[in-house]
Amino acid sequence: MQKKRSLLVAQSGGPTAVINSSLVGVVHAALAAGRLGTVIGARFGIEGVLADDLVDLGRVVPETLEQLRRTPAAALGSGRYKLRPGDVERALETFRRHDVGYFIYIGGNDSADSAHRIARAAAAAGDELVVVGVPKTIDNDLPLTDHCPGYGSIARFVALATRDAGRDTESMRRVDPIKLIEVMGRNAGWVAAAAALGKGEESEAPHLIYLPERPLDPDRFLDDVQRTYDRYGFVVAVVAETLRQADGRPVAQMEMLESVDGFGHPRLIGAAHTLSGLVANGLKLRARWDRPGTIQRMLMATVSEVDLEEGYRCGQAAVAAALAGETDRMVTLVRVADAPYACTTGLAPLAEIANSEKRLPDEYLAPDGTAVTPAFLRYARPLIGGPLPEYGRI
Amino acid sequence: MQKKRSLLVAQSGGPTAVINSSLVGVVHAALAAGRLGTVIGARFGIEGVLADDLVDLGRVVPETLEQLRRTPAAALGSGRYKLRPGDVERALETFRRHDVGYFIYIGGNDSADSAHRIARAAAAAGDELVVVGVPKTIDNDLPLTDHCPGYGSIARFVALATRDAGRDTESMRRVDPIKLIEVMGRNAGWVAAAAALGKGEESEAPHLIYLPERPLDPDRFLDDVQRTYDRYGFVVAVVAETLRQADGRPVAQMEMLESVDGFGHPRLIGAAHTLSGLVANGLKLRARWDRPGTIQRMLMATVSEVDLEEGYRCGQAAVAAALAGETDRMVTLVRVADAPYACTTGLAPLAEIANSEKRLPDEYLAPDGTAVTPAFLRYARPLIGGPLPEYGRI
Repeated sequence: MQKKRSLLVAQSGGPTAVINSSLVGVVHAALAAGRLGTVIGARFGIEGVLADDLVDLGRVVPETLEQLRRTPAAALGSGRYKLRPGDVERALETFRRHDVGYFIYIGGNDSADSAHRIARAAAAAGDELVVVGVPKTIDNDLPLTDHCPGYGSIARFVALATRDAGRDTESMRRVDPIKLIEVMGRNAGWVAAAAALGKGEESEAPHLIYLPERPLDPDRFLDDVQRTYDRYGFVVAVVAETLRQADGRPVAQMEMLESVDGFGHPRLIGAAHTLSGLVANGLKLRARWDRPGTIQRMLMATVSEVDLEEGYRCGQAAVAAALAGETDRMVTLVRVADAPYACTTGLAPLAEIANSEKRLPDEYLAPDGTAVTPAFLRYARPLIGGPLPEYGRI
Repeated sequence: MQKKRSLLVAQSGGPTAVINSSLVGVVHAALAAGRLGTVIGARFGIEGVLADDLVDLGRVVPETLEQLRRTPAAALGSGRYKLRPGDVERALETFRRHDVGYFIYIGGNDSADSAHRIARAAAAAGDELVVVGVPKTIDNDLPLTDHCPGYGSIARFVALATRDAGRDTESMRRVDPIKLIEVMGRNAGWVAAAAALGKGEESEAPHLIYLPERPLDPDRFLDDVQRTYDRYGFVVAVVAETLRQADGRPVAQMEMLESVDGFGHPRLIGAAHTLSGLVANGLKLRARWDRPGTIQRMLMATVSEVDLEEGYRCGQAAVAAALAGETDRMVTLVRVADAPYACTTGLAPLAEIANSEKRLPDEYLAPDGTAVTPAFLRYARPLIGGPLPEYGRI
């Protein structure tokens, strides 16, 4: 009889509201398989592998695992460690030492790259190591998957927050008529676009969306805001924190060269802060701005139940793939239908995930770039896990 | 038979998640009374009274009223208009023109002052006008009431957001170990203090709370952060946006004199942004900051059911008081018991509400000023409408 080999799982990159759901999906499937040795967790992603900072996940009581399915952030710890020379070999040594035959890595593009390098090195060294990735990123920018666990929940937060903060501005429009909401998304506008999921009538927030896919022209921006203000008496604009100008300079740094803090170092001024100053100075209109920051990716109260469930299923699918001997692959989400929404899982090569970024395609953006299309809404609506509650209006 | 006199209601000041619940409480009670003429709403607070910008609330269909009970922000519109000479007389003229015998004003300190001045002027003019205020402020700073509708909901948001963003920082502590969360509250620390309602173990967020009741000493702040970092490896600090230094200067302007934006005007730099710079420069630790802004007072997904219900009951109690002839008064919340929590309504003179601010008392703040006491937790816990869901930990 063959010795049961162990499975090691780790979490990597910026955390999400559902990355623990994926972790529990892995642990449940691994414990249920009956073919595995120890189910090991590494602390702080690959750093835990390199430092032998490991935990026996088989000893976590079932009640805690159930709680973890609805606990945001990375319970094992996460990080952004980039592999250095010698690290891959050191990781393989850890795997050999603990007889790890299966390595499951939950993460985004960078983690896919690390996992791929480890898989390739293991094969070259003749180690019997199966490596499977589980997709995770609020940015929704991984290729070859319909969407990414973590995105549906931040999309739901941004849709709800924009709608509610929009009502705030609408009711206070005689005092502070302009509101900017700064959201995440790295080089892709998926998160900013999701703000439109909470929009009803044309007059409602968000009126304008500014995404990294389209360079920001400050004059055009001021025209947009003035025109919208003239029409509705208030303006809610959602801006990606990574917005850039046509010459590539981040909007967030628009004022950098002339701004110096008390310590003599330049300070980064955020996109919403910068643009609110532009509005105040250029249009003489009072502007406020909200920057939910990490709250937007983490708030469990606005989690998408669809996202939570898909995160879990991706974790389970990774174990099934690993046990079937699939290696150097990442689990993907494959959409079967929009309405009623149905989604299954598939597999894609880690190497192809690692080296590419899926940005918002043109067909999801209106020609002027400040609104989304019905096609985007059809794509994104099922991911936020059900309709938003209806509001009244007098 | 006496002619039925009308009731006019308006909303004023910064909106909350439950100010519409109070409005619906007023409308339901007024329509049910059977003793009133038209139930009138004024747009944008007292401005609608002055401009005769009114709406017949009896025509709002029951289904819309039900939706409005769970719709954030001020459905009638709100504002911060300060009464000017002649305005009070003009308001009385509107009331006479529409035969308004009852004026219900939903708002905070400033609105209580406006309502009081109108009540006094009506009495002096011999007008039969009853004026009753409904408390409303997320700042929770009105005197003579146990707490204020609107506070329980922002408290729940801040407790949940701090806990969840705290998990984020904990899991990413090797990358960004310090997080600052900037919250509202004007001159009182009630909102910032509420962050502690989501804290479990000593090691969990929030580690430090900085309130307007205690001046911020930058050196002391850096010592607090370093000491907490040394102990737990990460730090989550909640800072009130209105934090001041010992000499009275806002922390938000700490860097103002040397910071100039691209247009040559000084720019306000927020408290969390300023303090994160202080940490980065002073301690060489990476700091992030979240500033949920108006989202914190508005997000319906984190509303407190207790707050929502009390807002409604305050609206109803105002109509009952008005019909009983009580004038120049505001409805108050009177706590009967902490556990099980029970609360009823009372009345207090508008004049005494208008000219005073209730700040966090010393017995609610730990001696060093960066944590709250068990007495505060006993006070605030029932207001957020039930326990927070339990999280797991590996």
